[in-house]
Amino acid sequence: MDTLAICGVGLIGGSFALAMRQAGFQGRIVGVSSTSTIAAALARGVIDEGTTLRTSQADLVYLAQPIQEIIRALHDMDAHLKPGALITDAGSTKQSICAAAHQSIHRARFVGGHPMAGKESRGVEHADANLFQGRPYILTSREPELEQWIGKIGARLVFLTPAEHDRLVALASHLPQMLSTALGAVLADQPDAAKVTGPGAADMTRLAMSSYEIWQDIVATNAGSIEAAIDVYIEKLREIRDALRTSELKTSFERASTAARLLR
Amino acid sequence: MDTLAICGVGLIGGSFALAMRQAGFQGRIVGVSSTSTIAAALARGVIDEGTTLRTSQADLVYLAQPIQEIIRALHDMDAHLKPGALITDAGSTKQSICAAAHQSIHRARFVGGHPMAGKESRGVEHADANLFQGRPYILTSREPELEQWIGKIGARLVFLTPAEHDRLVALASHLPQMLSTALGAVLADQPDAAKVTGPGAADMTRLAMSSYEIWQDIVATNAGSIEAAIDVYIEKLREIRDALRTSELKTSFERASTAARLLR
Repeated sequence: MDTLAICGVGLIGGSFALAMRQAGFQGRIVGVSSTSTIAAALARGVIDEGTTLRTSQADLVYLAQPIQEIIRALHDMDAHLKPGALITDAGSTKQSICAAAHQSIHRARFVGGHPMAGKESRGVEHADANLFQGRPYILTSREPELEQWIGKIGARLVFLTPAEHDRLVALASHLPQMLSTALGAVLADQPDAAKVTGPGAADMTRLAMSSYEIWQDIVATNAGSIEAAIDVYIEKLREIRDALRTSELKTSFERASTAARLLR
Repeated sequence: MDTLAICGVGLIGGSFALAMRQAGFQGRIVGVSSTSTIAAALARGVIDEGTTLRTSQADLVYLAQPIQEIIRALHDMDAHLKPGALITDAGSTKQSICAAAHQSIHRARFVGGHPMAGKESRGVEHADANLFQGRPYILTSREPELEQWIGKIGARLVFLTPAEHDRLVALASHLPQMLSTALGAVLADQPDAAKVTGPGAADMTRLAMSSYEIWQDIVATNAGSIEAAIDVYIEKLREIRDALRTSELKTSFERASTAARLLR
C-alpha cells in the first residue's frame, strides 16, 4: 500500500493520518479537503500533500467527511478510483453509506467503518495519533489488510452488519444525545430551575451543547432506529415513573448501576 | 452563638463544620453521630467533641442526616432543645421536612435548608471547608443570623418556599437522576449496545451509579413532583421524536444548547 488518501482532514481524518504514520505506514498520505483545511493539515505535518480534487492514485481511500458528503463522494468517485483500491469511511451511521457504496463503487472494494472515538474539540488542529487507542472500531465486513492497520493504530475491532450497527448506535449513542437535548429543552422552558441545578444536571446536559450540524446527517440517515430507541426508552422511563412509590425502584437502580459500571 | 451541633457528620455535615470554622466561628462544634463517625470526625479535627445522644446546649443545630432521619429527629427533639435555638437542615427535599418541623418544633426556630453541593465521594473523610463556595444554598425562610453565616461560607443564598423548592429540584436534580437510571436500565436490556458505546453514553449513565439508599428518601418525599417532571420530560422527548424528520429538530437543538450553556 503506497498511497493513503484522506478525504476530509478534520479531527478523525487527521487523527487517522497521524495514527497510521505512528503505526508504521511508510507511504504517501494525501489530504483531500478544502484549501484552508489542507493548509492547516500541511502546517501540522498531518499530511504530505493536499489536493482539493479527487485522487486517483490512492490504494486506500479514507472518507472522513460528514455523512452526506461521504454519500455524495461514493456516488461520484468510482470512475476516478485505482482499480482494486480499498475504500473505507468513518461515518457515524452505516446503512445509507454502505447502500451508496454497494450501488456506486464497482472498481474498488468498500468496507464501512466507524471509529467510536472523538473529542469535544473538532478540526485537524486537535488531531491526535492516539485518538483510536483502546476504542471500539466497527467494520461492516472483513478485510484483512484494513483489519491489520486498525489493530496497529490500537483500536478494538468490532464486526457488525450495517443494520446491527445502526440499531446499536441508536441506543448507545444517538439516544443519549436526544435525551440530553430533551432535558436541555425542558430546562429552557423552566428558567427558575437553573437556580437549583447541581452537577447532575450539568452532566446530563453536556451533550445538549453538541452542534446540530453534526447531528443533522446522523438523524437524517438513522431516523427509524432513533425513533425505535426513543420508544424503548419512554417505555422504560414510564416503568420507573410507575415504580417510584414501590420497592421495584430499587431493582431498576441496581440493574442500571451495574450496566453503567460495565460501560466503563 | 456559642455552640453548633452537627447531627450526621458525613460529607455535608462535616463540610459545614469545617466551613464555619474557616468563616470565623469561634464557638464549640459538637458532632452528633454514630460512634465510628464521631471517631473519624474527631481524628480529622472536623469537630471538637462528639456525642451519640441528643444535644441540649446548641444554639444552632444543623441536621445533615438522611431525610427520614431528619424527620424522625425533628419529631423527637423539641423537648431537648435550648429555648430560642435555631434549627436548620441540609435535606434534599423540603416539604416533608418543613412539615415535620412545623408540627413538632415549638421551643426553637426552624429554617429549612438545602446546599446544592456534593461530591462523588461520601463520608466525613471527604469533608471540605470549600464545598459550598459559589454553590446555591436554598433557605425556605429568612433568618438573618443563618443568612449571614451562609454568606460567610461562600454560598449563594436562594429563597424558595418548600413547594417551589421541591418542584424545581424535581426538574433540575431528581429528573436527571431518573433519566440516567432509565438509560442504564435500557442498556442493561441491550448488552450488545455496550460494544459501541462512546463517551456520550458514559456521561449520561454516570448518575445511574448513584446509590439507591440516598435516592430512596428523596423519592419517598418528592414522588409527586418527580412524576410531574417525568411527564413533562416524556412529552418533550416525544416532540423531539416526532421532529426527527423535520427542520424543527434544529430549533430544539438550539434551545437546548442555549439552556445547557446557561447552567454552566
